[in-house]
Amino acid sequence: MSEHFTLAVDAMGGDRAPDIVIAGVSLAAERHPAARFLLFGDEARLTALLRRHRRAASHSVVRHAPEAIPGDMKPTAALRLRGASMRLAIDAVASGEAMGVVSAGNTGALMALAKIVLKTLPGIDRPAMAAIGPSARGDVVMLDLGANVACDVRNLVEFAVMGDVFARTVLGLPQPTIGLLNVGAEEMKGDEQLRQAADALRESYLGPQFHGFVEGHDIAAGTTDVIVTDGFTGNVALKTAEGALKLVGGLLRQVFSSSLSARLGYLLARPGLDRLREWLDPRRYNGAVMLGLNGVVVKSHGGTDAAGFAHAIDVAMDMVVHHFNDRMREGLGRIVVPQPGVGPTDGPRNGHGPRLAAAR
Amino acid sequence: MSEHFTLAVDAMGGDRAPDIVIAGVSLAAERHPAARFLLFGDEARLTALLRRHRRAASHSVVRHAPEAIPGDMKPTAALRLRGASMRLAIDAVASGEAMGVVSAGNTGALMALAKIVLKTLPGIDRPAMAAIGPSARGDVVMLDLGANVACDVRNLVEFAVMGDVFARTVLGLPQPTIGLLNVGAEEMKGDEQLRQAADALRESYLGPQFHGFVEGHDIAAGTTDVIVTDGFTGNVALKTAEGALKLVGGLLRQVFSSSLSARLGYLLARPGLDRLREWLDPRRYNGAVMLGLNGVVVKSHGGTDAAGFAHAIDVAMDMVVHHFNDRMREGLGRIVVPQPGVGPTDGPRNGHGPRLAAAR
Repeated sequence: MSEHFTLAVDAMGGDRAPDIVIAGVSLAAERHPAARFLLFGDEARLTALLRRHRRAASHSVVRHAPEAIPGDMKPTAALRLRGASMRLAIDAVASGEAMGVVSAGNTGALMALAKIVLKTLPGIDRPAMAAIGPSARGDVVMLDLGANVACDVRNLVEFAVMGDVFARTVLGLPQPTIGLLNVGAEEMKGDEQLRQAADALRESYLGPQFHGFVEGHDIAAGTTDVIVTDGFTGNVALKTAEGALKLVGGLLRQVFSSSLSARLGYLLARPGLDRLREWLDPRRYNGAVMLGLNGVVVKSHGGTDAAGFAHAIDVAMDMVVHHFNDRMREGLGRIVVPQPGVGPTDGPRNGHGPRLAAAR
Repeated sequence: MSEHFTLAVDAMGGDRAPDIVIAGVSLAAERHPAARFLLFGDEARLTALLRRHRRAASHSVVRHAPEAIPGDMKPTAALRLRGASMRLAIDAVASGEAMGVVSAGNTGALMALAKIVLKTLPGIDRPAMAAIGPSARGDVVMLDLGANVACDVRNLVEFAVMGDVFARTVLGLPQPTIGLLNVGAEEMKGDEQLRQAADALRESYLGPQFHGFVEGHDIAAGTTDVIVTDGFTGNVALKTAEGALKLVGGLLRQVFSSSLSARLGYLLARPGLDRLREWLDPRRYNGAVMLGLNGVVVKSHGGTDAAGFAHAIDVAMDMVVHHFNDRMREGLGRIVVPQPGVGPTDGPRNGHGPRLAAAR
């Protein structure tokens, strides 16, 4: 029998759980014959659903979870639900039964639970959220996307290590280029922390891949394969780009339905437009990954459909099949952490450090 | 004779100066019969150009400037060029000869010179850069866009005052709504400075217009008319959105030239597509404004064309015609500044304050 890769799935997380979760598992099972799923959730409902999804059933085992974490529950409250589907799925990774977990549930709860139950990899100060997005020159990895609104030099350097390994394992790039997000004009480049992080990266084993500072427009331009930033900026940038794409998509739909001739025009240009839409499809980029933990943790968008959930599983599979965490440990072993002694209790930290104001 | 509004123009700033500047002045003169321009630059070149632009000539006076500030010159060096076209144009605002200045030149130099020569309005700690962009619900004003990478509570509150007056005078909105840019998930909302700024705005005369926190996707959605943020985040968000729009534009061009049938489709849908392109045209949003100074300062994109430069003049005209700074003074008189004693020498400041990390 060939090697199997077991993922734990929070079957009760997300807007349309467990239905789209099981449908997504079914799609993913088709693409990943070596995948096995531990499905955590309401046993009766899951068993009934699996009767309609034979392929999912043949790759899955149901584990009953008496509770589910509501989407609006605070992380502190979620931590107390020991029988929640999300909790039990993460526990399965901690116990070694599963190599990773996929959930479309409450993001804050997932981050908090994953961090507490799985713990960070040795040498990692803080985990980060990363995601893949489209650019003019292929897919781009950006992190952090909000796991840490406050970051220091060490965090930024570790994000670069994580982003590099993620781009290698999930995008299959042999030598990903890395950029540190900054603002443009010369006089604004006064951010001491960003400069220190750039210096540290330049001197590290990632030096040959480090492009230096990049700006907001470099994300979609694909100037680098990996974009490193603090969680506040990354979260705003990701959502701003998504918003801009959504705006154009909506306007294009209006244009193509505005007249008979425009409708006909759409039909004629349709093959290309459909390819474009497919390429920009948010579902294709579904699956934000929490990096830096002892285990693979993938967060699917809560409002996604079966295809989107299957993409989140794809990301988790890429990571476990390519031994993401082993390669992370290698990378961490090679990096010289700029501020090894600074722990989280040393006071407030900050995404952009002591900035110098412009033109002073 | 009817009232005139005089603007000082840095005719030597930008990639294709002075040609596109004079062509832009010509376009603007057509739209603003009451506008008068003081054109600062190389007298011989400007005089020759004005022979070809009769309308610009009839609204303009040339003032010789022996020097021009190169696009890559550091602000500190630019400050020493007393005879630079940009400097003399700003001096004309300081002396009261002109009500505002428009330049497509070196951004850092413009910010530094404007701040030093014109000085901030009484009560304003720091000026901000603002710009208008498209959204699903009409134009949106965002600030700061990079004049200050480090902001405190007071700065954010003052940005809201400036953004409100700017949206009233330039967009003509009677009661603009205001949002404070933040990240989404509950556990990330730990930013003390943002919360303090939100509290101060809620309690101020802007309270009825204050929507609370918004996220990145709210910019293009047009959730609020004004988006307030620190200069680092604003600069990244603006450039990220521009990059995303540019990516889609490029891809659409590829789609519509990919086959004969796609080309035909483009022709059939063209009226709507052209309207969309025109609406999203970066030139239409050309003109970042430096707010909070004794005088109107508009920065045109350096790479713009005549139409874009004319739009920058439009923004300056809207501001002077609608007495932007008088209304700013009114707004400032009504706001209770949260940290009145904190000056720029009190140590490093920070865009996001002492943030609490997620899930700790």
